[in-house]
Amino acid sequence: MANSSAGESVASRIVRLLETFTTERTVQTVSEIARRSGLPRTTAHRLVAELAASGLLERDAAGRVRLGLRLWELAGRGSHALRLRQIALPHMERVQARVGEHTQLAVLERGEALFLERLSSPTAGANITRIAGRLPLHASSSGLVLLANADEEVREATLAGPLTGLAQGTTTDAGRLRVQLARIRTHGYVVAPGSVEAVSTGVAVPVRDGRGRVVAALSVVLPRDAPTSGALDELRRAAAAIARDFGVQPG
Amino acid sequence: MANSSAGESVASRIVRLLETFTTERTVQTVSEIARRSGLPRTTAHRLVAELAASGLLERDAAGRVRLGLRLWELAGRGSHALRLRQIALPHMERVQARVGEHTQLAVLERGEALFLERLSSPTAGANITRIAGRLPLHASSSGLVLLANADEEVREATLAGPLTGLAQGTTTDAGRLRVQLARIRTHGYVVAPGSVEAVSTGVAVPVRDGRGRVVAALSVVLPRDAPTSGALDELRRAAAAIARDFGVQPG
Repeated sequence: MANSSAGESVASRIVRLLETFTTERTVQTVSEIARRSGLPRTTAHRLVAELAASGLLERDAAGRVRLGLRLWELAGRGSHALRLRQIALPHMERVQARVGEHTQLAVLERGEALFLERLSSPTAGANITRIAGRLPLHASSSGLVLLANADEEVREATLAGPLTGLAQGTTTDAGRLRVQLARIRTHGYVVAPGSVEAVSTGVAVPVRDGRGRVVAALSVVLPRDAPTSGALDELRRAAAAIARDFGVQPG
Repeated sequence: MANSSAGESVASRIVRLLETFTTERTVQTVSEIARRSGLPRTTAHRLVAELAASGLLERDAAGRVRLGLRLWELAGRGSHALRLRQIALPHMERVQARVGEHTQLAVLERGEALFLERLSSPTAGANITRIAGRLPLHASSSGLVLLANADEEVREATLAGPLTGLAQGTTTDAGRLRVQLARIRTHGYVVAPGSVEAVSTGVAVPVRDGRGRVVAALSVVLPRDAPTSGALDELRRAAAAIARDFGVQPG
């Protein structure tokens, strides 16, 4: 019987367990995992043992637990996200080289913008916190592009709020947001100054697949008062190239 | 009770189910999953439903199943592999830009070289088949570097064979391989012509973390008779830069 007496599936318990790992917390003891996941200690011990035997978790010499490479391998090799990211990467590199600022690829996942990739210049230093990170749809430039092109159901759910402000530039009024989304659909891009952080401006465009469906948002993060037209040109060129490559490649 | 009557853990069944997805097979029906995983149909149906409810799998309009973005997100955000890959990426981009050939990052995972990243020039076209793909340690240039620097136990297990040849240049004799590994440790690199494919030569160097431990191999794949010294210089420079960045960045 796969379900516990509490009616929660083992799959759901495994997800709760995996969710305790974050970019800042890559190694934990089993006790920490139990406490943070809310799972009974014995359940946590047994699941960790099972997942470690399958390679989805790994233990270090001190018995502490981290995510296994096998999990990354399984998640990556059959993923359509990987295909999108792989098609986009050379074009993102060109944007990054020419604009010289953080260049990002995001998709809509369960009501948020999930970042699949983020390139930064070597001098800017690596920034791992944002890959596989999320931002609200109404705040980030990527999120706004995704929201503008989302199914009506998803759009209305977001417009119904709450529309929390992340910075002074976040649109938190549903009526104004609705107008902004219509404008994004008409113009095919967004420039969002200070909507996530006061010091920066996001510029984003939609990325379409071979059939013209919006599958992602491509964005750059510029200093707040930097000119945006050069970056926008590069983003549009890259998005067009990605759509072309999508059409050509099998899959 | 988490274990089935057959004594196999649910975690292990979930792994069998996830393993049926590959780079070439990203969408399957539940029946296909059941057949390929060897799980009973009812078990496959129940596990797919549980995993889909947790977001680890997704269903399309036709009810077919694919890996969920949530799985990728969970696997990626807490992974030390992501951190390594993220530190290495800007330096890999520089190698790729200067050498102009496929540039790869691999780690040792359960007796094989697992490729975390592969960059190709925009003109070469994306090659998704190899990311999250594996190659034998004794055949690929990356694998040879990893094997040369592996724990004695791992090295002896590989040397015990079988040492299958992938191409004419693969070293399949344990004695010769042992000499080759010692040479790689001494010189700090390998040039492996025709060991994976007759038409190409792999060049690889070890990548060390801040404490000097070999954590990965960085490689380029050149046309068989291309000069290798320029690529080797670039690889060494990149590996040194990655080790420096490892030392600087928090853990």
